[in-house]
Amino acid sequence: MNATGRHQVPVPPGGMIGILGGGQLGRMLALAAARLGLKTHIYSPEKDAPAFQVCDAHTVGRFDDADALARFAAGCDVVTFEFENVPADAVANMVPNAGTLRITQDRFEEKSFVTSLGLGTAPFRKVDAPVEGSGILKTRRMGYDGKGQARVSGRREIAEALERFRNAPSILEGYIDFAFEASVIAVRGGDGSFAVYDPPENAHENHILRRSTVPSRLTPAQCDEAKAIAKKIADALDYVGVLAVELFVLKDGALLVNEIAPRVHNSGHWTIDACLVSQFENHIRAVAGWKLGDPSRHSDAVMENIIGEEARDWQRLAARGGALHLYGKSEIRPGRKMGHVTFLSRKKS
Amino acid sequence: MNATGRHQVPVPPGGMIGILGGGQLGRMLALAAARLGLKTHIYSPEKDAPAFQVCDAHTVGRFDDADALARFAAGCDVVTFEFENVPADAVANMVPNAGTLRITQDRFEEKSFVTSLGLGTAPFRKVDAPVEGSGILKTRRMGYDGKGQARVSGRREIAEALERFRNAPSILEGYIDFAFEASVIAVRGGDGSFAVYDPPENAHENHILRRSTVPSRLTPAQCDEAKAIAKKIADALDYVGVLAVELFVLKDGALLVNEIAPRVHNSGHWTIDACLVSQFENHIRAVAGWKLGDPSRHSDAVMENIIGEEARDWQRLAARGGALHLYGKSEIRPGRKMGHVTFLSRKKS
Repeated sequence: MNATGRHQVPVPPGGMIGILGGGQLGRMLALAAARLGLKTHIYSPEKDAPAFQVCDAHTVGRFDDADALARFAAGCDVVTFEFENVPADAVANMVPNAGTLRITQDRFEEKSFVTSLGLGTAPFRKVDAPVEGSGILKTRRMGYDGKGQARVSGRREIAEALERFRNAPSILEGYIDFAFEASVIAVRGGDGSFAVYDPPENAHENHILRRSTVPSRLTPAQCDEAKAIAKKIADALDYVGVLAVELFVLKDGALLVNEIAPRVHNSGHWTIDACLVSQFENHIRAVAGWKLGDPSRHSDAVMENIIGEEARDWQRLAARGGALHLYGKSEIRPGRKMGHVTFLSRKKS
Repeated sequence: MNATGRHQVPVPPGGMIGILGGGQLGRMLALAAARLGLKTHIYSPEKDAPAFQVCDAHTVGRFDDADALARFAAGCDVVTFEFENVPADAVANMVPNAGTLRITQDRFEEKSFVTSLGLGTAPFRKVDAPVEGSGILKTRRMGYDGKGQARVSGRREIAEALERFRNAPSILEGYIDFAFEASVIAVRGGDGSFAVYDPPENAHENHILRRSTVPSRLTPAQCDEAKAIAKKIADALDYVGVLAVELFVLKDGALLVNEIAPRVHNSGHWTIDACLVSQFENHIRAVAGWKLGDPSRHSDAVMENIIGEEARDWQRLAARGGALHLYGKSEIRPGRKMGHVTFLSRKKS
């Protein structure tokens, strides 16, 4: 075991990968680990976590239960996570590292880090109390899928939003008039090796990813720039594992960093079907200390999320001719990601 | 539940698929079911069956323990199997059907069935006692990977082989001077729908599959004939699920049926990486009463088995640039299938 994942002895086939979080990302990580002959132990506070259905061992426990976490970690060769809001110091043998979590769990820290690397972001400032200004007010911590966000204009709306956020420390981001959104899914090994997938173009609806398309409208030069951004961030964090960087593509062609996700990412799900080695397998390879796999794409791909009630239509979805992925969630809820479908077509370039 | 799988109500996401057998085929079936949001319950006599690592529930039990089998089956929406030597009447709600097992569990019955359809096989005859003749003596039941087989010439060698087989009822097959071996992996749905993968060419070493390559050397007309053979067999058996037909390709171009495997097959493992919907997923779709998935191939593929001690070389295998699949087997044994690697290349035609 190794706290940082650097120069570690590879976890051999039959070894145990611990995963904090048992949702669809944990589930797809477990399925990828299984393909490599690795076992998984899933830790989740949910009693019927989807990933429990596909793992060798599972623990139902809270993320603030230090004893349960310690027992869990002691039985794993390495521990990773499916979402970035686990406590940064949850366990010792965690990959990616706790330092990354401390930065990416706080929007202000994250954006400050990104700008310190000379990379562009939307204009932003800390907001702890009502101020003048307009843009999108976001809580610094724990936001996802549009939760903890409000469009605001003027001191009164900012005051109201802060009240809804229970005065959680926040940031105010300026509006960006982007042409479209894209992301980069990259993976860095413990030996500093780096691999990156072709950047998809992403369409959101109600703050939730609807569709990822690859190839995107990015030019070859923009693709290279996007990949270089991901590498700069991963290197600076001494990162090990898969990391996603969400980007705004401006009308003048500039790329701004919107968000860093220190984990496998919804906009990379197409890699399961369009690449020989998916983002999930490459994350497992990286955290287990294996050589990274080939991220090249054999097909063009469109990935569409199946959200909430859409999952009731599974028979039609199964007959549509794409690759259907359902996440084993027992309950449909509005806005809940229930699955996705990937459509492939012959690679044009 | 439905004993034959015909016109059944589809098993919905969250439903339970029972699988008899917990080896690599059961494991890959379980992984495919998980992708569709289906749960699996694995039944195996082995305490550390590889498939136990990736399923929702497992039972350690013998295949002749009727009570344990009945309890297992009662908790499953449908039951299927990973290998054809389970008792034909093991459980009621089994797909493919028991009639198929009764035929394919006995080489004499199987070959008689194949010839009754007007399809070619090697010359064969029943052997219950020493006779004159030469060829390959095979026990009628329970043979696989070359077990229960002997090359024989003359009454004395046949007598010796029968003694080694403990006088098990056998057949004597004439030698076939084939150009190469191929197989067809097909799937038939409960509604009679049919889908078939491109037939791979197969190379064996020591009676164990070494390599499958697709496209094969079969001409387009031979591919069509191979697919028609699989359809004829599947229809005649009123088959539901994936079925593999091993073929001898003669120097004059004729195709002879070597063996029927009423299950997913080693020569179809490349479908995981080279097709949008693999043989494993299509088997699960068929037995669960879902629409079949697209069997078309997006890439050319070569699949190589990892056998016995070769698995010790996993670090090099993981770095070779293919898709590595390891089966989670705790013990390496000579001739044991430990995993496989699939290499893809751009589809030529």
